Amino acid sequence: MRVVVPFAVDQPKTRLSATLSADERRVFARAMLADVLAAVDATGHEPTVLATAELDADASAALPDDSDVVVDDSPLSTAVNDVLATAEDPVAVLMSDLPLVKPETVRRLVAKSGDVVVAPGRGGGTNALVVRDADFRVDYHGASYLDHRAAARDVGASLGTVDSFRLATDVDEPSDLTEVLIHGDGAAADWLVDAGFQLSVDEGRVGVVREEERS
Amino acid sequence: MRVVVPFAVDQPKTRLSATLSADERRVFARAMLADVLAAVDATGHEPTVLATAELDADASAALPDDSDVVVDDSPLSTAVNDVLATAEDPVAVLMSDLPLVKPETVRRLVAKSGDVVVAPGRGGGTNALVVRDADFRVDYHGASYLDHRAAARDVGASLGTVDSFRLATDVDEPSDLTEVLIHGDGAAADWLVDAGFQLSVDEGRVGVVREEERS
Repeated sequence: MRVVVPFAVDQPKTRLSATLSADERRVFARAMLADVLAAVDATGHEPTVLATAELDADASAALPDDSDVVVDDSPLSTAVNDVLATAEDPVAVLMSDLPLVKPETVRRLVAKSGDVVVAPGRGGGTNALVVRDADFRVDYHGASYLDHRAAARDVGASLGTVDSFRLATDVDEPSDLTEVLIHGDGAAADWLVDAGFQLSVDEGRVGVVREEERS
Repeated sequence: MRVVVPFAVDQPKTRLSATLSADERRVFARAMLADVLAAVDATGHEPTVLATAELDADASAALPDDSDVVVDDSPLSTAVNDVLATAEDPVAVLMSDLPLVKPETVRRLVAKSGDVVVAPGRGGGTNALVVRDADFRVDYHGASYLDHRAAARDVGASLGTVDSFRLATDVDEPSDLTEVLIHGDGAAADWLVDAGFQLSVDEGRVGVVREEERS
């Protein structure tokens, strides 16, 4: 199955700005992209990066050998719907900020039955979809998990959901880095460790701390 | 399989205190307990509430007909280990603040192979376990997901993990109420709706708002 991975080339993860510099956020986003693409590639499915601009060298380095890149500077929902409108076969759409995703996670997603399969993110988002219905279109704004379920019903599509912590964990905020250190084993986790992050336990609650800059 | 559900009778969810009064937190905690017990009961497995004190009437009302109650005022890990030390058959341990858990979630947990099966919570916690090894003991303090994996290895137990958003979502903080309104369909979600909570979408992010007190 074609697995489309939207990637915002020039949009930093601003909610991580208290923790990471702009350049670090840029590099970290590419490490997360590399993890997602590697997980897809390991399943034998074909990743397509749906990029908002031409990929820079760091982002290109994240691409497995057989991946495609489509550049579309439209907003996310428009760009994904352009793909869906021209697709002749089922398409999966998997966000690029899901560094906990493993090959078995991708297999579960793709194996789930349903004309439209939705994997929720925290806060009502949609972190992954499989679309096997020609009429279904996305709208990522707001509580898109509920909206996508309603949209599937509206076009008469059967609905599947995937109950996955790994798919639900998009990395947007400093507390999410905890999850990457605990559950990640790819480029994003390696990058955090190299950048000096480690787990800390404070009064029983787990977070991350960063070492002082090393000389 | 026996499914042990620890329940702190007198410990309010203090991190919800900005949003719910002490009495509301008490009632809401019992609604969450009822959801977890109903999900277990629907699978045909036998719930045992491991309570820190005698259950009050509201908590007793949450019990399915065939559930047991064990009162043990020890700290959580000690009380669970007391159960494990005397158990002759496999035991599952499922937290009581997981109102997104459905019967199919319990089935996935119990069906997972491994001498020790762990379902992570956010922030490195352990929200559910299946213990089929006589020597394994729990310690819920700190990053218990990692500690439980290490403890399983230490006793030579094979390890399984369950990748479930529903099992990962323990309800501790106001933002977690969003997940209950989006994904819950039981007593906890009903209670929130009756208490005036509803989803709100603000600049694309989803949260909850509470109606003004109705006269």
